Amino acid sequence: MIESFVIEPVGIIHSCFTEKFGIPRQPGMVKSATASLELLPRFNREEMIRGLDQFSHIWVHFLFHKTVEEGWKPTVRPPGLGGKKRVGVFATRSPHRPNHMGMSAVRLVSVRKVKTRFMLELAGVDFLDQTPVLDIKPYVAYSDSIESAAGGYSTGQGSEQIGIQFSGQAAQFCKTYEQETGRKIRRLIEEMIHHDPRPASQKGSKNRFGMLLWDVNIRWQVEGEQFTVLDCLQVH
Amino acid sequence: MIESFVIEPVGIIHSCFTEKFGIPRQPGMVKSATASLELLPRFNREEMIRGLDQFSHIWVHFLFHKTVEEGWKPTVRPPGLGGKKRVGVFATRSPHRPNHMGMSAVRLVSVRKVKTRFMLELAGVDFLDQTPVLDIKPYVAYSDSIESAAGGYSTGQGSEQIGIQFSGQAAQFCKTYEQETGRKIRRLIEEMIHHDPRPASQKGSKNRFGMLLWDVNIRWQVEGEQFTVLDCLQVH
Repeated sequence: MIESFVIEPVGIIHSCFTEKFGIPRQPGMVKSATASLELLPRFNREEMIRGLDQFSHIWVHFLFHKTVEEGWKPTVRPPGLGGKKRVGVFATRSPHRPNHMGMSAVRLVSVRKVKTRFMLELAGVDFLDQTPVLDIKPYVAYSDSIESAAGGYSTGQGSEQIGIQFSGQAAQFCKTYEQETGRKIRRLIEEMIHHDPRPASQKGSKNRFGMLLWDVNIRWQVEGEQFTVLDCLQVH
Repeated sequence: MIESFVIEPVGIIHSCFTEKFGIPRQPGMVKSATASLELLPRFNREEMIRGLDQFSHIWVHFLFHKTVEEGWKPTVRPPGLGGKKRVGVFATRSPHRPNHMGMSAVRLVSVRKVKTRFMLELAGVDFLDQTPVLDIKPYVAYSDSIESAAGGYSTGQGSEQIGIQFSGQAAQFCKTYEQETGRKIRRLIEEMIHHDPRPASQKGSKNRFGMLLWDVNIRWQVEGEQFTVLDCLQVH
């Protein structure tokens, strides 16, 4: 019987999500959310990923590195239940879990070589920037896709009623930022707000909210079902 | 940057597969393949699995404990490619991988309490007996099920043409064994043979094969598409 086991990251994530707030609760919800998976030196070998580009989707196993120090809890309150009801941690995908292991099925857009480093370009991600990657596996539909699987607290659907408008400053900023960096920030903001990233406890709130995407701080507010992106500010 | 991380099993598998030969290549292929997941003492708390029984399927993360000592290989030859072509280990689900982590989506049949221990009863498994479990997560169809995902070396379908017959001894043994243990061994043997567990290199072979299920050694042979279960012997 193995009592404990030492694991070692094989890669690291470079993601648009530079802070926890606003990260989609599951992968695939925000299709414009992108990340690069960089193979770490020991595993940076073309042969190790040979054939991976035949797959449209891959599993990324990772460490919830920001919660490692916080430890785990036997029960948690999933946001999909309105943040009120407690359920067992093994009945959730909470990061506050024993071994702090996460996994996400994401779209593999391309495999690139940047100087000597292999990078997997991913979309539909829910990874925090700098997340350590523990494993990469192909998504195999015949055993991984169980469409009839029942249960869960959320449908993953955003609200159809949400209206989103950008202030003049925000609209102009997005245009310039996209031209300069190639990052499609306006589409990303729209998709994130469509899933209403407010904490469950503040769903009725008219407060202003801020979120960081790459190096851009975005402020927005809500009135009823109308979301307004107030301004965008590049931070350094 | 986290350089290494110590993980600890949270459970252990008791499975019908007491040896590697014949284990389905992926979960879900052999629906009669069952296992019990026993929570280890530190995690044997009702509250930790509260609400899990709302889900029809769960993810089990585990350690490929039998290959830990063998280490990993940068490339492997997946059986779905006939065992001939080499691809990168990250483009496969091979157990010879860095960190030796596996994951399977399986059906959660029930949650039982046996004396003081909580047991998750699972079906459609591909776990070797005594596999250490690293994590348990609910299967969430809206993010985990990607039916359109493309790629892969196998369809997971067995051959329709395979005929299976049992010798008189084998048929009688299965009947008695099922009565005594409650284990539906005949159905399990049929489903396993339907997926032709012969190694790719021996697909044309007429040799006799043996496989161990629970404590039963089963001998069978193939002629063309006709499989015959020769005899079953209980071992101790």
